[in-house]
Amino acid sequence: MIATAAPARQRLKPEERRTQLINIGLRLLTTRPIHEMSIDEVAAEAGISRGLLFRYFPTKRDYYVAVVEAAGRRLLRHAKAPEEGTAAERVRGIVEGFVSFVQRRKGNYVALVRAGAGGDERVLEVFEDNRRTLTGRVLDAAGVLDPTPLHRLAVRGWLAMAEEMAIGATGDVVTTDDLVNLLVGNLEQVMDRFTASDR
Amino acid sequence: MIATAAPARQRLKPEERRTQLINIGLRLLTTRPIHEMSIDEVAAEAGISRGLLFRYFPTKRDYYVAVVEAAGRRLLRHAKAPEEGTAAERVRGIVEGFVSFVQRRKGNYVALVRAGAGGDERVLEVFEDNRRTLTGRVLDAAGVLDPTPLHRLAVRGWLAMAEEMAIGATGDVVTTDDLVNLLVGNLEQVMDRFTASDR
Repeated sequence: MIATAAPARQRLKPEERRTQLINIGLRLLTTRPIHEMSIDEVAAEAGISRGLLFRYFPTKRDYYVAVVEAAGRRLLRHAKAPEEGTAAERVRGIVEGFVSFVQRRKGNYVALVRAGAGGDERVLEVFEDNRRTLTGRVLDAAGVLDPTPLHRLAVRGWLAMAEEMAIGATGDVVTTDDLVNLLVGNLEQVMDRFTASDR
Repeated sequence: MIATAAPARQRLKPEERRTQLINIGLRLLTTRPIHEMSIDEVAAEAGISRGLLFRYFPTKRDYYVAVVEAAGRRLLRHAKAPEEGTAAERVRGIVEGFVSFVQRRKGNYVALVRAGAGGDERVLEVFEDNRRTLTGRVLDAAGVLDPTPLHRLAVRGWLAMAEEMAIGATGDVVTTDDLVNLLVGNLEQVMDRFTASDR
């Protein structure tokens, strides 16, 4: 069988090959869970042998972790505060980036960033790292210079809410703009309450 | 090898045996993910043959789904509104039940109710059913008689926040009572905002 979609047996530098393989995973893992994806399929799509693929990723788990890491990096590239602006503007920048990223790739996001873990420690660590980074960015944008554990807990909870709403919201229920407004407003309220109870 | 912890080869009625096997799963799956748990181990703990276990649960997945369902039912038994009381009291009842349930079984809860899915459709359906039931209970307790999709989205988001905070909160950061107060107050705020924007 000859691959027609992709040019087969392309000569790529190691870093390019790695990127190509990860991009294939980002695409395939949106349509099915990891335990249903075969390494042979990835190798075939890349036009390389199974053996060469395993030189880049010694096990299927290693490959999976690399794909989840790449998905997390993409999210973090979008959910960024502008360098300049008021606290409200900077928080809004993160929320807009986060919500639009999740909304553009709902199935993908759920499959890779949320439901995909399957109890795998390394994947859970990647999720945890991403949440920690996002929490830090929100606190920084909100101007909380010396966050307490209660501040972090508040933002973590609020991020979980933002994620759930961004996944669940469809255009006929709430516009992306309205959702961003609601979330930005709610963050203020969560922070106020938590700071007030943080005696 | 003789099992000492549990009486081996007990004669149980089918329903009792099923319950026994599920309880073993509820215990074992708190310490490791499903793909590391063996069916032989469950059968050995129950003092029955692998063959008999498979008469109750034809595949490991069937067993896993049954254990996750049982965990969900336990959660729903706890997160209940009192029959009588004001809206605030009834909401508080659900939040107290939910938060204390999650806090008493953190690792267990994360393993079984959240991270455990691994993309399994049936497990994700169980999670979805539980969230839908909880959302309905909260809306009913809050006195929202004819909820819109936006009301449901608001409560779903708030539930995700409640879950994240209940998992992340330790006693030195915030007491369970304070956390319940914060969550009850935030639900009011979320509902107000969403109702106001629900033109």
